[in-house]
This record gives sequence, structure tokens and C-alpha cells, in this order.
Amino acid sequence: MTESVKVKVKLGENNYGKADVQLFKVYRGTPRHRIRDVNVRVALTGDFGAAHKGGDNTGLLATDTVRNTIYGLAKEGFAGSVEEFGQELLAHFVRVGPKVTGGFAEFTEHLWERLPGADDQGHDHGFVRQMPKHTVRVETSDGQSFKVTSGIEELSVLKTTESGWAGYLLDERFTTLPESTDRIMATVVTAKWEYAAETCDYDDVWQRAYDQVQRTFTDHYSPSLQHTLYRLGEAVLGACPEMSRIWFQLPNRHHLKYNLERFGLENDNEIFHVDPEPYGLMEAWIERA
Amino acid sequence: MTESVKVKVKLGENNYGKADVQLFKVYRGTPRHRIRDVNVRVALTGDFGAAHKGGDNTGLLATDTVRNTIYGLAKEGFAGSVEEFGQELLAHFVRVGPKVTGGFAEFTEHLWERLPGADDQGHDHGFVRQMPKHTVRVETSDGQSFKVTSGIEELSVLKTTESGWAGYLLDERFTTLPESTDRIMATVVTAKWEYAAETCDYDDVWQRAYDQVQRTFTDHYSPSLQHTLYRLGEAVLGACPEMSRIWFQLPNRHHLKYNLERFGLENDNEIFHVDPEPYGLMEAWIERA
Amino acid sequence: MTESVKVKVKLGENNYGKADVQLFKVYRGTPRHRIRDVNVRVALTGDFGAAHKGGDNTGLLATDTVRNTIYGLAKEGFAGSVEEFGQELLAHFVRVGPKVTGGFAEFTEHLWERLPGADDQGHDHGFVRQMPKHTVRVETSDGQSFKVTSGIEELSVLKTTESGWAGYLLDERFTTLPESTDRIMATVVTAKWEYAAETCDYDDVWQRAYDQVQRTFTDHYSPSLQHTLYRLGEAVLGACPEMSRIWFQLPNRHHLKYNLERFGLENDNEIFHVDPEPYGLMEAWIERA
Amino acid sequence: MTESVKVKVKLGENNYGKADVQLFKVYRGTPRHRIRDVNVRVALTGDFGAAHKGGDNTGLLATDTVRNTIYGLAKEGFAGSVEEFGQELLAHFVRVGPKVTGGFAEFTEHLWERLPGADDQGHDHGFVRQMPKHTVRVETSDGQSFKVTSGIEELSVLKTTESGWAGYLLDERFTTLPESTDRIMATVVTAKWEYAAETCDYDDVWQRAYDQVQRTFTDHYSPSLQHTLYRLGEAVLGACPEMSRIWFQLPNRHHLKYNLERFGLENDNEIFHVDPEPYGLMEAWIERA
Repeated sequence: MTESVKVKVKLGENNYGKADVQLFKVYRGTPRHRIRDVNVRVALTGDFGAAHKGGDNTGLLATDTVRNTIYGLAKEGFAGSVEEFGQELLAHFVRVGPKVTGGFAEFTEHLWERLPGADDQGHDHGFVRQMPKHTVRVETSDGQSFKVTSGIEELSVLKTTESGWAGYLLDERFTTLPESTDRIMATVVTAKWEYAAETCDYDDVWQRAYDQVQRTFTDHYSPSLQHTLYRLGEAVLGACPEMSRIWFQLPNRHHLKYNLERFGLENDNEIFHVDPEPYGLMEAWIERA
Repeated sequence: MTESVKVKVKLGENNYGKADVQLFKVYRGTPRHRIRDVNVRVALTGDFGAAHKGGDNTGLLATDTVRNTIYGLAKEGFAGSVEEFGQELLAHFVRVGPKVTGGFAEFTEHLWERLPGADDQGHDHGFVRQMPKHTVRVETSDGQSFKVTSGIEELSVLKTTESGWAGYLLDERFTTLPESTDRIMATVVTAKWEYAAETCDYDDVWQRAYDQVQRTFTDHYSPSLQHTLYRLGEAVLGACPEMSRIWFQLPNRHHLKYNLERFGLENDNEIFHVDPEPYGLMEAWIERA
Repeated sequence: MTESVKVKVKLGENNYGKADVQLFKVYRGTPRHRIRDVNVRVALTGDFGAAHKGGDNTGLLATDTVRNTIYGLAKEGFAGSVEEFGQELLAHFVRVGPKVTGGFAEFTEHLWERLPGADDQGHDHGFVRQMPKHTVRVETSDGQSFKVTSGIEELSVLKTTESGWAGYLLDERFTTLPESTDRIMATVVTAKWEYAAETCDYDDVWQRAYDQVQRTFTDHYSPSLQHTLYRLGEAVLGACPEMSRIWFQLPNRHHLKYNLERFGLENDNEIFHVDPEPYGLMEAWIERA
Repeated sequence: MTESVKVKVKLGENNYGKADVQLFKVYRGTPRHRIRDVNVRVALTGDFGAAHKGGDNTGLLATDTVRNTIYGLAKEGFAGSVEEFGQELLAHFVRVGPKVTGGFAEFTEHLWERLPGADDQGHDHGFVRQMPKHTVRVETSDGQSFKVTSGIEELSVLKTTESGWAGYLLDERFTTLPESTDRIMATVVTAKWEYAAETCDYDDVWQRAYDQVQRTFTDHYSPSLQHTLYRLGEAVLGACPEMSRIWFQLPNRHHLKYNLERFGLENDNEIFHVDPEPYGLMEAWIERA
């Protein structure tokens, strides 16, 4: 082991808070209950140098206090969207924390549908969990103005035809993949977007974005996942004037046609191996021109 | 380290095969495609002593051959249910493996719904993945008769009221939990069942079981997860005469009412902490009387 | 949806209890602390029919009480091994639960080594976590006699040579794998064993088994993972007279030689793709002859 | 569903490539083999507008080609550190990709120790996997100059005493946590650092950083995880003049003293519940002054 010598150091960018707070709220004003099921992270920024350097905790909010506050404010507030609740939280921490000047809050909301009920409106207080998630990030540097980002996670879609990959660079030494004009395209959509509007009906925007992604995925022959990404962005921005821009991360979950010819069998795009790793990965922002 | 001395040993119960084979089949006879997306494990049993003791691989099916076979037979067969495909696979391995006498096949089927299409019948070749899974286990000791088990996994349900836990043993030294007649009940259903019928429409049975679980979960005040388990079993057996018995594993995903009274706030079953660990866990078979 | 008709059912085999209880005990009698870090599941069996059928919880231990008891008894007892603590727990539950007649307890112990200290004995109260785990299962049907099983999990080992796979069945239609006499062998050892002795120094047996597995894995040319499994069993039984038999589950974590010849490059067992799925999977009991 | 109207959009920041490529290299020049086991992601940036907008793939490197290249260059190069291999890869892609101008490569290296051998130097070709990981990120905008970041992941450490949390803000409405001057401190270290040096012995720097983190964690009474974070940074920078700054993310894995007083038992810091969620989370850069 090499020894460490004494050197002059200073604190750079930093934050602290509580992560993986599991908050569940029931709105029970009427027999037809509504619920919110969110994983919360709150990270505070501010004047925390004395704590880091000297071990002086004076004026620090304990992360346990941060946790209690999330539950307490969820009772007093959280009447509307998760996006608005994030702003309520951060405004509060800047107000009560003597050393807090800003921070960010991140949410992953689990989505639940109503279980079947007596009629086709679904059950009043029974729910079944869905796979896709709603994500939110709210950020502030003063506790008064906020940057809001929302998104979709774990929306897993595929189409069994109307997709290909051809016309790419074939003369590179390491290229072995044959071109294809009929393959399976499968991906797990992660999206996030920023807002042009100061404020808006965040839940309604999310629903429109979610609908457009599902409809646009199949409305064209896809020459590449990059092109489909672009079309998804175009369609969502077209349906959501409240958005300024949208980002997608799309893994190409490769469904590889299994080589059955070795066994004297034809494989007319029927039998595939789903390769868990590696995968193509595309990331891009689509913005208003 | 203590040395190992030479002792006389023998081979006991054993099997080998291939696990986590990701098979995807597209049924494209018409423009309206159907799909099967299954994770497969095949384990073979038989006369494998020479391989274990002497390192003699004569007559052994390679696990790579097992994998190829799964894809090859999926092309030639797999016209019906996963349960039937499991029987096709095992019958084949007993037939072609000189030392194979039996084995088991396990499947986890990922379920996909159709994406929205032009009408309300859903898209012809676009799909979106659902959370619950369909499980299957087929077992044989001769390649000719089979024991089939089917099941449900990752069906996550909750109800916000009509559940309690009271009347239990209060005089035990370590009891601190207060009784409740209004709490959240949340669980992630794992079920598996055996069949009375020699053969049946396995997919239809699964759908009936899945429907009954979702409907029965909310059709009563639940005094305990154990009682709800029993009622689920009763309802599924009532809807599925093909079943002989059914097993459930139900974790009690505790939603703990957060103590807001410390902050001068009332908590009328509105604000909960979802505790990831530990959890109550109930397991039981429900059988025909 | 098909309706459910009323049918006669009864309760079959069943149990309930608490899972994923995270217990951490510090032994601080001297400045040189020792620790135990265990994940605990306790499942009780007994006369639970009234709770299941009628929703009558009379005399039932709450799973919350089960949890409290685990922590309470860890304070009063848990002086020795995890295997002995499992027996203390089950004996207690049979004693205090009016309807409990037996059950099982399962443990996953996280292993920690001492951080570096002033001398080479390691630090007195600082620890760093290791990857392998120690597993235990204790079972009873009367609270007085116990069946104990111990094991190893997540011991990931590999060797870069001295392993092959040849001489297997080549004339099967679906065989495409070429034979090899020099490949990488990689596996993640899961083992569990039963005891011949009524009682013994469980921690010492575990350490001997763990040492033997690590030494035996490399002491021979391996013609198959099945043969290596057999030799591991033989060596551990030779070092541990307290054991009656031992079971291994060994996945074959395939390291596939990457086809570089396509690019005009030789691959003399140097460059491999580690395939996450699928994998060969071997399971066997090795027993005293 | 709301319809999407046609709007003008453009492509913003974007990249594409291959992720989760599992590369394993054996250095077998002598009987004493060495290994590298890395998960690789390569993301390319450049002029990809035509592919996104028009579906024109001309001149694009397929992600399959990216994968092949990683294995091919690992054979031809990768003689030194992972950090240097990352530069070789990116330089290559800028050279051969007509539309590629830059990108980044990310690596997670799995660490293996030698299994026990004949003497105390460890086995020549047998290895056992360790828990901590070595991470690397290399970035370029021209294929010629590179920004390198290295790090540590999943180093799980704890100390059973010499840690507390006191003196913090107590008059906030939501504060309920009592002060403590003797608690367990447990964390899972994630670190990453940037280099002041143009080039250096990256493996040696990593080893020094890893040693310092393990030694510094226990060399002081910790009044907060923030202060320990600062001391870790100071010590590593003192041992590694090649580094310009270092970032840590430290979750506070809360070990909560279990309330045994309710059962008439004292708990003198002996019995703890390890709470999986939520957890305090601290992030900070420590930089040279």
C-alpha cells in the first residue's frame, strides 16, 4: 500500500437527501377511491461545507426529517399531480432548511388500473398493477422557480413485421450482419420531456404522450430504430403543445432468427432467439425546429 | 485447511439440461399474427453415472443439442399450448437420448396484448407486454405419461379498504401490533395448479383462473390474507372443473399507516409507507373435498 | 368470463410466517467485535384451518409477532451458529403458538471480512462484505427434533484451461457443437448438505466445505461439469465426516470463443463472449456409498 | 385519444451503439494466465440526421459491427489497461465510421482473485470472483484527445462503532430522530475520479484508491457520512497525485437499533434491523484546492 500524503482539498458540487421513500396515498373522499404510489428521492443542495470538512452538523436537516416531511406534506398537500407535489416539497425544504438553497426531487410512479367491478367502470377500491411507470424530476436553485421533466419507463413493445435494417456501411472489415427488410423490432421505451408551458395538466400530457407512442410505433415501415425514435418524437410533440422537447432511449431487443437450415428446416421469420445481451442502444432528443 | 481423505461415494438423484432458453415464435399464417414468448428450462434424467464418475460422455446429449432441439421442435410443432409443447419436448428427448429416461420442462411465458389498431380489435402485428406471467411445468419418468402443472406469476393486486387483521393471539410476549379492521391489503399472486383431466384446453383454463383471481380478490371483507387465499382457491376450483387442486403463495406487501400524529396531523388511512421488507408470507394448497 | 360455481374444497398443506427479516447482531463483549448479518424466513405449520376457512384468527401468532420474536430471541440467544439459532427459533414458536406444531426457518447469511487494521489481523470493528453466502434451513415437525441443511451460494469460480467437452452423442439431428479439449469452465456454485451427526461445529464444517470446493475445482482436467461436480462432492465428503450427503447446482456459464477468423484473426483461446443465457445446468446429490 | 398534428421538429443531441457486450480476454503467454472480464458499452456521436429523419442508413456502422469490432480490437490490442483500451476503441470508430465524429465507451470490469494454489501465490489458471467492480468511462469529440474517468462500484463496508449523528437541526416540525454518538455506519461505495495527468498507470492508481478507501473508512470517529466522504476524498487525492478530483456516492444503509425495551430486554447496540429502504444518500466531488 502506498501512503497518503496530506494535500489541500475543497468541497465541490454536492447534495444529500433521502432515496427510495415509498409513499402511497389514498384519496378516499368518495367510495370510489383513487391512489398514488410513488418512489421518491429528495436531494438538497446548499451550504454544507462545515458538515463535510469539520463534521459540524449545525442547521442540517436530517435525512430522517426529509423522509418524515415527504409523508407529512403528502397529507397536507399532494392534491394534484406528482409534478406539482415535487414543487411543493422543494419549496418547503428551501423554506425550512437554514442551509438549503435548492435541490431536486425524483419520482417513479407505479401505475395501477382498476380491477373488474360490477359494471365496466372498474372496481371502486380494487386495483391491479401495470408495467409502465411514470417518472418525474423537479429541480430548483431558489425554491421558487422549477424545472420540471416527466417521462415514461418500462413500456415494452414489439412488432413482428414492418421493420428492417439495410443500406448501412458494408465495407468495414468487421461487418458480418446481413441486410434485412423483414425482422422483428422490439424495444423498451424510456422517454422524458421538458415543458414549454409554465404550468399545465401534467397527467393529461402524460396520457397523450403514452397514447401517441403506442400508436406511432406501428404506423410505418421502420428502416431503423433511429427513424422510429424520430417519428415517436415528432408524433408526441404534435400531440403535446405543452412540451418543448422529448428524449428517448430505445434498446434494440434483438430477436435473432434461429438458424434452422442446419437441421433441414426452413425459418420463414417464425422462430427467434431473444438475445438478452448485447443490444443496440439509441438515444436522442427531438426538439421543435 | 483440513485435508480431504478418500471416501466411498455414489451418485444420487441428478439431472442436467439447458436453462433460460429464450424462445419466440410468430404464427404468421394470416396477416393477424399471434406470438408465443417463453423462457424454457429442460432438465433430463437417466443413466448419467458414467459421466459423473468416470468422465465418460458417451451417448450424452450435449446441452447445446438440447437448446437446438427446443428451437427445432418449436418450428415443427408447438401448434397449441405451452403445456402441450412441454410434452412434445420431453417425449422427444426420451426418444433420441440413449441414456435419457425422463425429465422435466419449465416455462415462463411472457404475456403480450395487442397495441391499439385501426379498430377496437387491436393491431395485427404490434404488441405491448403485460406484467403477469404464465408458468408451466411438465414432468415425465417414461416420456409417455406426463404430470402437468400450470400457474400465474407477478399478478400484483391491492385493495384500499375491506380488509383487516384482528382477533389474533395478543398475550404472547412479543406481540405489539394493534388490531385493525380497515387496512390496505396488497399482494403479488403466485399460483400453480394440477389437473384432474388427462388433457384439456390449457389456455382457456388459465384465462378462467386469471379472471376468477381478479374478481374474487375484492368480493369480500378480508379478515386475513389466509382467508382470502382460501376463497381464491375455492372460486378458481369452482370455475375450472379441469383442476384437481391449486396452490397459492401470497406475500403480504405491508402498507403501514405512517405515524403523522407526531406532527399534529390526522391519518385517516390516507398516507402509507410501503415496506419492502419484511413481509408476511402465506402458502397453501386448496383441494377438492 | 365464465362464472364460478360453488364446490366443496378443503385446506391442504400450508404454512405462514415472515420472510426477508434482516437481522444484524454485533457481539461486543470485547473491543474486537464480531458480527452476524442474516436474512431470515420463518414459516409455521399447524392447525390453521379455522383461519383459512372461517376467517377466525383465534390463537394465531401474527407475522408481526414472528418478526419481533426473531429480534428478541437474537438478543437472548444466538450465541453460536446460525444453524443452532434456527433450532432455538422453531422450538420457541412451537412452545408459544397454541396452534403451531412445526415449521421451518431459512437463513441467508452475508459474509464479511475484516478491513485492514494496524497489524495483519484485520480491523477490530471495520468490515468489508464478501460475495459468497452461507445458507441454512432448519425444519421440525415437533419443535424438539430438527433436520438441518447448510449450504453455499454465489461462489463464482472459473478456470481458463484444463477443461473440455468431447465424446458426447454426435449423431443426433440437432447436434452442431464441435468437440473441445481446451475451453474455459466457469460456474457459480450453489451447494447444500445434510448432516450425519446429531450436532457439530457447523461453522467449521462450512469453512472446510468452502475450502475444498475452491481447491478441488482446479485439481483435475475436467471432461464435463458433471464430472467436476462429482469430484467436488467426493472431496467435501472426504473433508467433512459430519456430512451425510451434498447437493450441487452448477450452471455452465458459457464463455464462447468469438469467431475472429471472419476478420482474418486467429483466436487461440484468447477472446471470448460471456453468454448470459442460455446456460447448461447440472444438479446432483453425491452420497456416501 | 387526442390526435397528433404535424409540427416542425429537428434532431437534438444523440448517439447510438452497443451496450452490455460481455468481453473476456485471457492473456496466455505464460502458464500463469491473466484475465480481463469487462462489460462494454460503446456509443457513437456524429452526423446521423439522415438516418433519423429520412431513414437513410448510408454510411452508418451497424451496432453489430460495433460489437464485432470490440472483440476484434481486443485481440489485436488491449495489451494494457481498460482505460487505454477505451481510447483504442474510440479512435478506431472515428477513423472507420464515415459519419462518426466522437463518442464514449463505458466499462464495468469484474474483478477476480486467484484461487488457492500449490504455494501462497495463488493458482495459475483458476480464479474466484470478487464483489467490487472497476468502472471506466472514456469520451472523445475528435478521436484523438480523450477524457478518462475511472471508479469503484459495489464496495460494501461497515463499522460497528465510532460513528454518530448529532448536533443537527432539531426544531423543524418533522424532526423525530434522536441524536446518537454510537451507531453502525454502513455504506456501499461508488466512486469515480478524473485525471490531472495526460496518461498514467491506471491500474496502479485504482489499487491505491481502493486501498485508501478501505483504510480511511475506519481511521476516525465519524460525525456524519458527509464528513467521512470528505476524508475519503482527501486520503485518495493524497495517495494519487495523478487524480484531479474524485466523486463519491454513499448511501447510508441504515442499521436501526431494534426496540427491545418493549419486551423487557436491553439493546446495548447489539440487535439491529437492516432497513433496505429508504436510505440517506450523499453525493459530492472533492477537489484539489
